[in-house]
Amino acid sequence: MKISSLGEIKLIDKIRSQVKLFSNDIIKGIGDDAAVLEYNSKYYMLLTTDTLVEDDHFSVRWFKPEQIGSKAIESNISDIAAMGGIPKYALVSITLTKNLEVDFFDKLYKGIAKKCEKYRISIIGGNLSSGKKISIIISLIGVVEKKNLCLRSDAKVNDLILVTGTLGNSRSGLELLKHNKCGKSIDYYLNPTSKLKESRLLVKNKINAMEDVSDGLASEVLNICNASKKGAVIYKDLIPLEKNTIIDAKKVKKDPYNYALYGGEDYELVFTINKKELDSLNKLKNKLKFSVVGKILPKNKGVYLLDKDKKIKLNYGYEHFRRS
Amino acid sequence: MKISSLGEIKLIDKIRSQVKLFSNDIIKGIGDDAAVLEYNSKYYMLLTTDTLVEDDHFSVRWFKPEQIGSKAIESNISDIAAMGGIPKYALVSITLTKNLEVDFFDKLYKGIAKKCEKYRISIIGGNLSSGKKISIIISLIGVVEKKNLCLRSDAKVNDLILVTGTLGNSRSGLELLKHNKCGKSIDYYLNPTSKLKESRLLVKNKINAMEDVSDGLASEVLNICNASKKGAVIYKDLIPLEKNTIIDAKKVKKDPYNYALYGGEDYELVFTINKKELDSLNKLKNKLKFSVVGKILPKNKGVYLLDKDKKIKLNYGYEHFRRS
Repeated sequence: MKISSLGEIKLIDKIRSQVKLFSNDIIKGIGDDAAVLEYNSKYYMLLTTDTLVEDDHFSVRWFKPEQIGSKAIESNISDIAAMGGIPKYALVSITLTKNLEVDFFDKLYKGIAKKCEKYRISIIGGNLSSGKKISIIISLIGVVEKKNLCLRSDAKVNDLILVTGTLGNSRSGLELLKHNKCGKSIDYYLNPTSKLKESRLLVKNKINAMEDVSDGLASEVLNICNASKKGAVIYKDLIPLEKNTIIDAKKVKKDPYNYALYGGEDYELVFTINKKELDSLNKLKNKLKFSVVGKILPKNKGVYLLDKDKKIKLNYGYEHFRRS
Repeated sequence: MKISSLGEIKLIDKIRSQVKLFSNDIIKGIGDDAAVLEYNSKYYMLLTTDTLVEDDHFSVRWFKPEQIGSKAIESNISDIAAMGGIPKYALVSITLTKNLEVDFFDKLYKGIAKKCEKYRISIIGGNLSSGKKISIIISLIGVVEKKNLCLRSDAKVNDLILVTGTLGNSRSGLELLKHNKCGKSIDYYLNPTSKLKESRLLVKNKINAMEDVSDGLASEVLNICNASKKGAVIYKDLIPLEKNTIIDAKKVKKDPYNYALYGGEDYELVFTINKKELDSLNKLKNKLKFSVVGKILPKNKGVYLLDKDKKIKLNYGYEHFRRS
C-alpha cells in the first residue's frame, strides 16, 4: 500500500503505537501542539517542531523568500501559543538546492531572524543540508507557567467553544493565487501571524482546552474532542468570517465556510471555557477579538456542524499525502 | 552568486552574523556539536538537530529503510556524546514521498524506534510532511552533568589529541558501494554507531576539548583549533586505520589516510587531554580503544599534518552544496 492511500492520520497512529517513553518527567508526549516536560518549580518546558517543504507548504512563485522564513517561525510559535506558553529558543534546519541564489538564502534567513528578534527567540543551533527542494524545519522550545498550561484534553461537557479572530482567510488567499486572481485575503496566506499575545491574555483567564487552527476548525475541534473524550456541536452561522474572505471566495465560486472548517493555516486559537467565565472573558473584548462558535457535548453525541436544523458530521480537513 | 559557489562554511558564517541571543541562560549557542542551556543545579541541557536527506546523505539503493532510521538517530546521538552528555528526548520529523510504500515507512520508523529503545530516548513529538525526496530531521535533547561538559573551545597548548577507534571506515564503505565493489568497510557506512558509552567513560577522566568525527579528522581538529584559538599538528603515521579499510581503499585505488582526514561519518570521538592525564586514561584501555594522533600548538603554528618530515596544511573536508 502507498503512503497516499493510507493518509497522515493513520500514519501518526502507526507512530504512536511504536513510541515508548523512558522518563517520568514527560507531562505530555506526542498528541498535542507541543510536548510538555517538567522543567522547574514554576515552569514546564514546551517543545515543538514544524516543517515547511517547497511546493507542499509554499511555492516560490507566490512567496518572497523573507515571507517563507517568517511563516516558518510563525507556524511554530502558533504551537507554543496553543499551549499557553512563551517561545524562547529555536533550532533552525534548512535544506537548500545547490542552484539557489545566495541572495535568496540571505532573505529567507532574514525573515527567520527578524521574527526571532520580534519575539525575542534565541536561535541556538540548526544545520544546513542540500536537497532537490527547499525546506525549513524549525524546532521551537518554550516555557509555560504550570498553572497556565492548556492541553487539548481539558475540555469539559457544556464548555463553550470559542475562536479568536476570523477563519478561512488563509485558504481563501491560496485559492485566489491558484486561480490567478487578486484579493485582500492573499495577504493572510502569505503573511500569517501566530496569536501569541492573544494566547497569553487568554491563559490569564480560566480557559480549559486550547489549540491553534492550523488544519481548519473541523480538525481542531475533532482533536480537542478526541483528546478530551467528548463530543461537540459547531453552529455554522456563528463561525466568524472576514467580509473580504466572503468576497474572495465568491471570485472562485467556493464556500467560505468550507475554508473556515477545512482550510487551515489561519493560526487563530480555538479554546473552550466554562460558560460562567464568559463575563470575565468579555472584559478582554477591547484587547482581543473572539467569538463563541459551539459547545462541548458528551462523547456519544458525536462531533457535528449544525447548519440551521441540519446536523453534518465533521471530518478531518487537510491531510498530507492524500492526492487532491 | 549560487549556493554551490559559496559553500557551507561561509553560509554558516552568514547565519552567525545574524543570530542574536535574548536569554542569559544560554551557555553555548551556535558553534559546537550541541547547544548548551542552563537546566538545574546539577545539569545543563543539550540540544542538537541533524538532517538526513535522500541522495545527499543516503541512497535507497544501498540503505535498507531500517538502516536509514538507525543512522538518523545515531548521527544525532553522536553530537550529544561529543558534549559528554546523555540523550533523553527526540523530536522526529519525516518528509515522505506520496508514492512511498507504507512498508518502507514502517521499517524506517522501526529503525528509529529500536535505537531509541536501546538508548532509552523518549520520542516526544515530531511531524510528517510530503515532498519529492525522503528526509529525516531529528532534534535530540539531552543532559550533561555541569562538571562533565566538553566544549570544542577547551583545548590547551601542549594537550595531546586523541581519537577513539579507527578512522576512514565509513568513507571507504561508501566508495566501495559507488564502485560496485564488496568489502567489510561497507558495514561501517551503512550501520554507523555513535560512541556514547565511550564518551561517558572519557568525561569521567579529565579531558579538555571534545568533538565527534562526522566530517573527517581534519575538519574536526580545525573546529577545535578555531574555537580554542590554537594550532595543532597531526602525525599521519599515528592515525589509526582498520586493516580492512586499507584493503578496501586499495580496491578503488584511493589513499585510506585521505578517508580518515576528509571522509567523515565515522562518528568516533576526537578529544584533547593534558599529557599528565594519559596514565589515568590508559587504565581504560580494556574498555575503550583510543590512540594519540597529535598535539595542540600555539595558534601561530597553524593546523597541519606531519607526513614524515613534510608539513601539509589541513583544510575542511566534506562541505554540503559544493559540487564534487
